[in-house]
Formats: sequence, C-alpha cells, structure tokens
Amino acid sequence: MLAGDLYAFEDLLTEDEAAVVRRVRDFLDAEVVPIANTQWERAEFPHHLIKRYADLQIAGRPGSSLLNGWLALEMARADASMATFYGVHAGLRTTARRDGDTWILDGRKRWIGNATFADLIVVWAKSVEDDQVKGFVVAGDAPGFTATRIEHKIALRTVQNADIVLDGVRVPEADRLQRADSFKDTAKVLRATRSGVAWEAVGVMLAAYEIALKYAQERTQFGKPIAGFQLVQDLLVRMAGNVTASLGMCVRLAQLQDAGRYRDEHSALAKAYCTTRMREVAGWSRELLAGNGIVLDYDIGRFVADAEALYSYEGTREINTLIVGRAVTGQSAFV
Amino acid sequence: MLAGDLYAFEDLLTEDEAAVVRRVRDFLDAEVVPIANTQWERAEFPHHLIKRYADLQIAGRPGSSLLNGWLALEMARADASMATFYGVHAGLRTTARRDGDTWILDGRKRWIGNATFADLIVVWAKSVEDDQVKGFVVAGDAPGFTATRIEHKIALRTVQNADIVLDGVRVPEADRLQRADSFKDTAKVLRATRSGVAWEAVGVMLAAYEIALKYAQERTQFGKPIAGFQLVQDLLVRMAGNVTASLGMCVRLAQLQDAGRYRDEHSALAKAYCTTRMREVAGWSRELLAGNGIVLDYDIGRFVADAEALYSYEGTREINTLIVGRAVTGQSAFV
Amino acid sequence: MLAGDLYAFEDLLTEDEAAVVRRVRDFLDAEVVPIANTQWERAEFPHHLIKRYADLQIAGRPGSSLLNGWLALEMARADASMATFYGVHAGLRTTARRDGDTWILDGRKRWIGNATFADLIVVWAKSVEDDQVKGFVVAGDAPGFTATRIEHKIALRTVQNADIVLDGVRVPEADRLQRADSFKDTAKVLRATRSGVAWEAVGVMLAAYEIALKYAQERTQFGKPIAGFQLVQDLLVRMAGNVTASLGMCVRLAQLQDAGRYRDEHSALAKAYCTTRMREVAGWSRELLAGNGIVLDYDIGRFVADAEALYSYEGTREINTLIVGRAVTGQSAFV
Amino acid sequence: MLAGDLYAFEDLLTEDEAAVVRRVRDFLDAEVVPIANTQWERAEFPHHLIKRYADLQIAGRPGSSLLNGWLALEMARADASMATFYGVHAGLRTTARRDGDTWILDGRKRWIGNATFADLIVVWAKSVEDDQVKGFVVAGDAPGFTATRIEHKIALRTVQNADIVLDGVRVPEADRLQRADSFKDTAKVLRATRSGVAWEAVGVMLAAYEIALKYAQERTQFGKPIAGFQLVQDLLVRMAGNVTASLGMCVRLAQLQDAGRYRDEHSALAKAYCTTRMREVAGWSRELLAGNGIVLDYDIGRFVADAEALYSYEGTREINTLIVGRAVTGQSAFV
Repeated sequence: MLAGDLYAFEDLLTEDEAAVVRRVRDFLDAEVVPIANTQWERAEFPHHLIKRYADLQIAGRPGSSLLNGWLALEMARADASMATFYGVHAGLRTTARRDGDTWILDGRKRWIGNATFADLIVVWAKSVEDDQVKGFVVAGDAPGFTATRIEHKIALRTVQNADIVLDGVRVPEADRLQRADSFKDTAKVLRATRSGVAWEAVGVMLAAYEIALKYAQERTQFGKPIAGFQLVQDLLVRMAGNVTASLGMCVRLAQLQDAGRYRDEHSALAKAYCTTRMREVAGWSRELLAGNGIVLDYDIGRFVADAEALYSYEGTREINTLIVGRAVTGQSAFV
Repeated sequence: MLAGDLYAFEDLLTEDEAAVVRRVRDFLDAEVVPIANTQWERAEFPHHLIKRYADLQIAGRPGSSLLNGWLALEMARADASMATFYGVHAGLRTTARRDGDTWILDGRKRWIGNATFADLIVVWAKSVEDDQVKGFVVAGDAPGFTATRIEHKIALRTVQNADIVLDGVRVPEADRLQRADSFKDTAKVLRATRSGVAWEAVGVMLAAYEIALKYAQERTQFGKPIAGFQLVQDLLVRMAGNVTASLGMCVRLAQLQDAGRYRDEHSALAKAYCTTRMREVAGWSRELLAGNGIVLDYDIGRFVADAEALYSYEGTREINTLIVGRAVTGQSAFV
Repeated sequence: MLAGDLYAFEDLLTEDEAAVVRRVRDFLDAEVVPIANTQWERAEFPHHLIKRYADLQIAGRPGSSLLNGWLALEMARADASMATFYGVHAGLRTTARRDGDTWILDGRKRWIGNATFADLIVVWAKSVEDDQVKGFVVAGDAPGFTATRIEHKIALRTVQNADIVLDGVRVPEADRLQRADSFKDTAKVLRATRSGVAWEAVGVMLAAYEIALKYAQERTQFGKPIAGFQLVQDLLVRMAGNVTASLGMCVRLAQLQDAGRYRDEHSALAKAYCTTRMREVAGWSRELLAGNGIVLDYDIGRFVADAEALYSYEGTREINTLIVGRAVTGQSAFV
Repeated sequence: MLAGDLYAFEDLLTEDEAAVVRRVRDFLDAEVVPIANTQWERAEFPHHLIKRYADLQIAGRPGSSLLNGWLALEMARADASMATFYGVHAGLRTTARRDGDTWILDGRKRWIGNATFADLIVVWAKSVEDDQVKGFVVAGDAPGFTATRIEHKIALRTVQNADIVLDGVRVPEADRLQRADSFKDTAKVLRATRSGVAWEAVGVMLAAYEIALKYAQERTQFGKPIAGFQLVQDLLVRMAGNVTASLGMCVRLAQLQDAGRYRDEHSALAKAYCTTRMREVAGWSRELLAGNGIVLDYDIGRFVADAEALYSYEGTREINTLIVGRAVTGQSAFV
C-alpha cells in the first residue's frame, strides 16, 4: 500500500488488477525513479525505456477505468513525464480537406508530445466538409510536416514537446483513425485525457506526500524528528486530506466511466479540482523540505515543477471551470 | 438526485437504503425545512418533531455505515441543528466512583445537547478504579445534577446546549451502559461521531450549493442570470469540487467502517477535511448571494453560522490534525 | 497602541489627530463595547448613543483622510454596526424628475440604513433630464415614502436597514444637496465609502486579533496557555500579517486621497482586498476560540457575522474586482 | 512608475533616491534582464556584471532603509538571483576559538552564496569563550577551507551556492569584523536580511504582475484580449492586492528601521507574509500564461522557481512564524 493511500483505495482493485499495478509499480521504482531527475535535468527522453514499457503489455490492454486510472497514477507518482508520454493528449486546431483518397492537412499545433522523435504522430483535424473532428496518423518525415522542439521548458522536461506545422500534408484515407470520426468521439478522447490528468495529479500528490513524510521522520531539529512539530504535522495532514479526497473523486469517476454515465463536466471537474489540490500538496511538501526542496536530489523539486504543467494542460482550471459551469447552470460564460 | 451530487454517489445505496433516504428527505423537506429559520432565530427546539422523528424509525435501526452517514447528510442538509440533535456527541471529563451497587459521578461538562429538557441524559465518565471510560444514563431531575442552558449562541441555535454540573450524582449500576465500558469503546463512539460530523458537513455543503445555484439562475444583472458570469460560475464550480471530493471521502470511510478496518485517524481526517471544505463552500455561497446572504430568509445565513459549530465540535481542526499527525508520523505533537 | 498595530501605524497621526482618536477610542470602549452584543442580539439600535456621538464632534469635522479612516477603524473595532451607522453609504437606482421648483422621486432601494427611524434620509437618484446622479433630503414621513424594516438579519443586526419605496415623492429644489450633482461627485462618494469600508475591515481585524490573543494567553490546555502551541501561534501570526499589510494599504490610500490622486480603482482594490483578508482573520479568530467562539459573550461571534456584511456591501468582491480590472487592463468585463 | 505600483509608493522616495532607483532600474533592464534566463538555465553566474554593479556605486552607500529596500526590490524584479547575490545572507553554526592573535574556525555551512568563486568570504561563528557570534573574513584558498558547489538547483540557479567546510581554518584577529561582535549585532544582520527578502518578494511580485498583465493584453481568445475575461481579471486583481498590501508593509518597516524602532518580529513578520503572498502571485501569473508559463522564454517560469528559494531561505515561514508568535504571546513554541 502506498504511504499516502490512508483509506486503502488500492483494495478496490480486483486481484488481477492489483497484480498489474504492483508489477508496474515495481518496474517504475526499479527503472524509472532512479533516472528521473537526471533525464529531467538534461531534458532528454530515456528512449531505452520505450521497449521496456512495451514489455509491460499494458498499452491498449482492455481494463477497467479504475485500473487505467490507477496506472496513470503510478506513472505520475514515479515521473509525471512518463505519465504524460504514456497518456493520450489532444489538440484541436487543424483542418482536413478531402481530395479523393487522401486528406490534406493544414494548420499549426503546439505542445505535441514526442513529435520530435516519433515515427508516427496522431493529428486531430476538423474536416472542412462535415465540420467533424477526425484523427490521422502522420509520418514524422511526411512532406510539409515539420516539428520544432520546444526548448527551455521548466516542467515535464523529459517530455519532448514540439510545435508542429502542417503545410498541405497528404494522408491516405487508410491512415485515418476509423473509430474516431465525430466530435462526439473527440469529446470522448478529451474526457479520457482529462480524467487521466486527474489521476496523474493524485500520483504526484502521493509522491509529494511520501517525500515529505520520509523527510520529516529523518530530519531532526532541536534534537527530535521534525515530524514531531505541530507545524510540520499540519502540512502533512493537509496533504493527506487532499490526497484522500481527490482519490475518492477519481474512484467514483472511474465507476461512472465504466457505467457509461460519464459526461464532460465529470472529467472537467476532476481535472480542475485534483490539479488544484495537487499544486497545494506539491507546494506544502517543498515547503516542508525548506532549502533542500530546491535541489533536484530530494525529488520534490521535479514534482513541483511538473505539477505546473499538469495544472495547465488539457484545459486550464479556467476552461474546465467554464465547462462545468455551463453544465450545471445551463448558461455559457465562455465569451 | 440532489443538485450537488454531480457524481451520483446516491446510487451507491441499495434500493432499500435509497427508499429510506428518500422517505427521510421528503419528511425533512416537508416538516423541518419550512420552520428551520424561525426556530433558529428564536433559539427554540421544535419539540413536536421528536415524535415525528420517532415515527421515521431510523434511530437505532441497524444499517450500513453508508446509509447512516447519508442520513446524517440529509439531516444537515435540511437543518444542521437537527443533525446535531439526532447525532451522538461525546465529552469525556467526569469521574465515576463505585459505591456498592451505585456509581457516584462528579464533574462538569459543557455543550451537552438537549440537556435542558431531556428526561434522560447519557454521561460519559472515567472510572477512578480502572481508568476506563463508562457511560451512564442520568435522569434530568437527579439530585446533584444541574443543567444550565448556554445562551447567546450564534450557531446551531435550535439545539439547546447546557453546561451541566454533576455533584455526587448517584446512578445505579443498572443504568450503566453495559456495552460501553472501555476506552476502546469510547474511542469507537468518538470515531462514529467524528465521521458523523464529516457527513453532516457534506450535507451543509449540498444545501449551500443548492441555494447558490438556484439564486444564480434566478437573479439577473445587466439583463441576464448571474449564473452566466464567469466569476459566479467560478464560485459554483469550486463548491461543486469540494462537495464531490468530500463525498468520495465519506463513502470510502463508510466502506472501511463496515469492513471493520476503521481507525481513529480515518475519522479524524474526514472530520477535519470535510468541515474545512464546508466552511469554504458556505462562505462562497453566502458571497454569491451578496447582501441577501445576510438575511435568514435566503437560508444560507443559517448554514454559514451553523458551519462554524460543526467546524469546532467533536475536535477542532487542530486536535484532529494532531490525531492524524500522530498516526502517520508515529510522533505525538500534542504537547 | 492597539495590540494588533505591530508596526505602530498609529504614530503616523499628528498629535492632535492622535488625541481625537484616543478620545473616540475611550468613548467606544466605555459606552459602546459593553452593550454591543446585547443590542446586536436584540437587533435594536441604541438611540441614546446618537447624542453621545454628536458630543464627540467628529462628524463633518474637517480632517485628514488618515484621521477619518482611523476613526472608521476605531468604530468598527468596537462595533461594526456603529461604523456602518456613522459612515455614508450609497445606492443608485432611483429616478428624479423636475417639476418646477420640486423634484419627483420614484424607485425602490434596499438596505437603506436607519431609514426606519431617521427623520431625514439622503436619497441618491438619477435625473431623467441630464442623467446625472443627484442627492436629495427626504423626510421620513413624506407622502409616497415608505420604509420597511429588513428583518431576520444575521449581520450588523444593530443597524436598522430598510427597503424603501419612493412613489412620486416630492422634494423641493431647496432640499437637493447642492454640492453633489454629477456622476463625478457620486463617484467621489462611492470612493469615500469604499475606502471607509476598507478601514472598517481593518478595525474588525484588530478586534478579532485582540480577542484571539487574549483568549490564547488565558486559556490553558495540557497545563499551559494555548498561546504556547505552534498551531495557535500560526493562526495569530497569519492574523497579524493580514492586519499589518491591510493597514499599510489603507495608510497609503489616505495619502493618495489627501494628495488628490485618488482614483476609483484605488478604493475598489482596498475595499476588495481588506475585506477579503478580514474574513480570513475573523474566521481564524473564531477557530482559535473553538466552541466558545459560537457564543456572543466572547465577542468574536458578532465580528464574524458582521464581517460578512462588510464583505458584501458597497460592492461585492466581484464588482470591485471588475472595477480594478477595467482600470488596469483597459478592458471591461462587466458583461 | 512600475505597472504594479498602483498606489504610487515610489513617490515616497526623495528625488535623489528616485534618481538612484531609476539609474539602477535602467541598468537592470538593459544588462541583467536580457541575459537572466540564459544564465539561469546554464546555472552560471555572469561574472562580467560584478564590475558593472560596482560602477553603480550603491553597495555600502549610506541611504535610507526605504532606498535600500527599494533597490532590493528592483534587483529581484529583474532577477532574484541578482538580489540574492547582492544581499547579505547569514548562517550561524560554526565555532571560533581564539589562539593568541588568530582565531581557529571549525564547522560546516550550507548554502553559502558565491563561495565557489569569491576571493573572500564572510563567515559568522560563535566564540567558544564568550558565546557571542563574530564575523570573520576568510580567504577562498585558506588551508582547511573547502567549498563544494551545490548542484541540481531548481531555483536561483544563477547563484553559485556552496557547502563549505571549515576544518581548523586560521584567521588573524585583524580579519575579524570589528563592528559585529555580539549576538545583538547578528540579530541586526538577521533583521536586515529578513527585511531584504521581504522587499525582494515584492520585486518578484511586481515582475510577475507585469508579465501577466502584458500577456493578458496581448493574448487573444474568442477574438478578444484575454484581459477582457472575468476569470483573468480576477487573477490580475488578486495579484495587485497582494503587491500593494505587501509594499505598504515594507514601506512602514523601513520607517521603523530608520527610526531605530525595529524589532525581530517586525522583519520576521514581513519576511513570512510577503514571501507567502509572493508565492501566490507567482503561481497566479504562471496560471494565467497557461502552457506558455512553463517555458523560460516568457520569464514567469524563472520567477516561480526562484520564489520557492526566497520563501524558504533566511528562515522558513514556520521559523518566522514562531519568532513573531513568541514576541506577541510571550510564549515560546520552538520546541
């Protein structure tokens, strides 16, 4: 059981699921955690891990939403960059025009993960004919396609994001994602990615809590562990509250998801809420480590920085607030 | 479904349980809500309701912790004073000395609910012999027993609290609660009351959310419902997040409770966390109603005031923080 | 020096001003504080004090903005209802139509202070001819004028607010406030009232701090004053920070005011900021008093309740935010 | 006038002081700001600037506390690393033993700024004879002295901090700072450094505000500048409130300082309060920039990271809270 899982939510997984989670956690603890800070500082993706992830056989594997969410949590608890790499993230401002058997894509996109080194990239574009959003698989070396690495990142540095430009890129109809051809489906993708970030936020909180707890028990001041001071316990218990409440929210979200009762506002609320709470938790943990919290070696520095990216991507708090707000009030406040 | 139950937690109740909940909710909406403000302002307990509560046949009824919690939520959503009346609340600073077949109780207690009019009051006292806490049923007119009503309350005004003094009050052994004779059992009572307050806090949040949502949809400014303004949606969505996360926490707490895996820190964390979030929610709701939020007629004023009592009783945030802190760090910071 | 004035801002008053402040403070401590809770609970205005206030000779007295602000602070520190009674508060939704030598006023207004018992009430109305806001003195018994007391208030209960209706009320031109006949002047009134509420908020904070500090030093737990516990000091120091920062803001505001460099956004920012901080301070103080914080006898209950009124009147936080936002961004976000 | 100085505090400087401030600001804007991100990312100190700083002739220059504070603000507004380099920062855990005309220093210190390249370093040590803290000038190449650069920093990366070890380092009595030989003087140093960090925190807030405001005015969404959205104005106005209140606090602190009325709790309160508010402001600014807030190019990323260092050094919030708490309650809660 993870230290921060005070209410034993992990026990809600089936035995099989729990076994998968443990296998992934062991892998992450053994192979990802030890190099996370180094890769992050160098802003380099650990390419050798791609095959190792494949060996885990979890991608695309059918599973309950609870399991999928928990796996995102575990990834993020080890390294939020890995969770981001592994997750599916969407962007929606490109057009597609059909020309016989091929599609012509035009537009620009920012923040496309891994686009600088991936062989194949999924691009979402709105068809000029039916106004529906469709997905296309674009080759990294397709004519008209350029990807420029985003430099100077201060968060999720291990993820290689790119600004991509599509200038009349041609994609055969066969490379269109057949199961994703309506806005409804895209909304589904967005819901899934938002929920995924909520789970990742819980993972970051769990990591931040563990780091803080360990430090508080080991660090002494005035001759006793600082864990014995009221102001330190105050920080730890605030963290524990946020973790537990957010986890309860994500667990229920997964149930709604599996029951097919999952709406946009559900995932938008979880995304906005859990990432807001995560930001608090990461900040309190860093505060607890005082000066040591600003060197990477103590890990929390990386989580604090990465939390900022999770907070903003897949819809800022503001955007997700307006999505929920529209659903519950029946009034749009977007403009 | 309650407006604030965005994640449909209510569906986790069994059909039988849901029927009980609906029956209680209907009763509360019909008989308690309409008089709640008046009784509160007059600081008078609605004695005629006692029989009506009895008719509901929910007291002492065996039921899952989820059902019990949800009933506390419903009571508090209607009137936090009712939830408090109905709940069991503990206090622990009186001594009991055995003298043959009777016990002699000495001490003082503050905040004993309903003690000014109840025929029988349960008093917890620590035995001077075995240092264990025991429960005793004391008659309201027992010699040596005096109850003085606490006046000038600004919260839970409908509850009649008293300062009681026990000056050599004699209680026959037969009136000792036979099933509650160790600290362990008292700890159990405290856990139950703390969890109960966490559920009540959710009830207050749900009420505050409903009031705010309704007001935002009806009130217009610059020619449109204020629900259409970003700053108003911001308040509503912050509320919705707190409600949903707190409810997820309470639901899991009930599961742990029924599984017999329930520890002091679980209920202490839920009590501290949910009442903290409740205070925010009540404040945001009142803020949304602007000037109308300070007249009782709009209901929120009462919830804001009552929230302060829930926040502080059964252990302040500080005390509950130190209980959780001790459990997770292994270090006591009480002194 | 007041306990919460850690940075000795009071020393910025001139000797003469300081003498006035001390005289007013002594009066308030002697005659207002002792009856504040009783009047508040009964929702009755202490009419006998009106003459006593007049004796103080501070109304209308020319003075620096610092002195005027500080006097508002002192009033609110004793009883926010008094500060509200004494302050000038505006409302702007009534029309005035000229008919020869008289004006005809029509409209409705909510929250008019003291309107149920005052002989003369100042009403602001917009002229249908020049669209400018003008001030009129209306007699309490003028035909067409009705004032209905607002009942069931939970804040500033001592102030007698009324809903007033003006139905063709005739006011002679001679009873028009000659120096207040343009929107510019009304804006000036609004600026002054908003700054006044900022100062009142500081007064409430100072009172809340004093109450908490005294309680923490007197109340013992585990054999020592609770002031010696870290979690208690944390609350006190957060309060002290808010008081000191808000006071620094108000002092500078008064300087700008006297220098004629005072703009709408200055007072709107102070009003929104200081009342937000005040709400936190009042809440922390009440939290520190635990259960005793919910009986009027310990004073803090009244300040907590009154803080809610100060937070919302003369422009909610939302409205003042948009006033500042428009000034600093050049973009209006009102609609 | 700086964009965030809404209350024109800058006008409180004398004309001469204002001229110095403008000269320094111009220098910083021209020579420091343009390279701040690059140096930060490379974690390299811009040695060529040392001479340029000397040319400014501000070090050691007698001046009012207001001027000195404002200069710290300007430095931090350009680059918090520069403010830190330029400021004096203390550490107190080394012993000094007198041996005739020389002193022998032993101990370890962490976080000594610039110790890896400075020719001379000031070390504070407690005399084993009179228990007083004294200051010594140690040569960077003194036998027994080693300085190890702290790597992997995520904040104030431009400052070269070191862990230093003093192993029997001999310093002639002549190199002892003659004017700093009692705890009282060290307390004075600590007060000055704490106040300095409070001013630096204001500088960071001003920078964060300017960045956010500019971005909000330039960035468009749904066809208008995002500065026109209520949720964006909300962030800006919260920032403006924090800046203005903190600046008012620092200005009064400088007055107390010059009046010789300056106590430990004054600087501790300012340090704790202003850095807490700064952390909020930096976070809101980054939030407003959404994804762009996590690349260095938009500057805010650096300020967010550096804010964490300012928040923790020269006494964490917790330590400064207990210093203030002890002063106002008369109770120590350190252990």
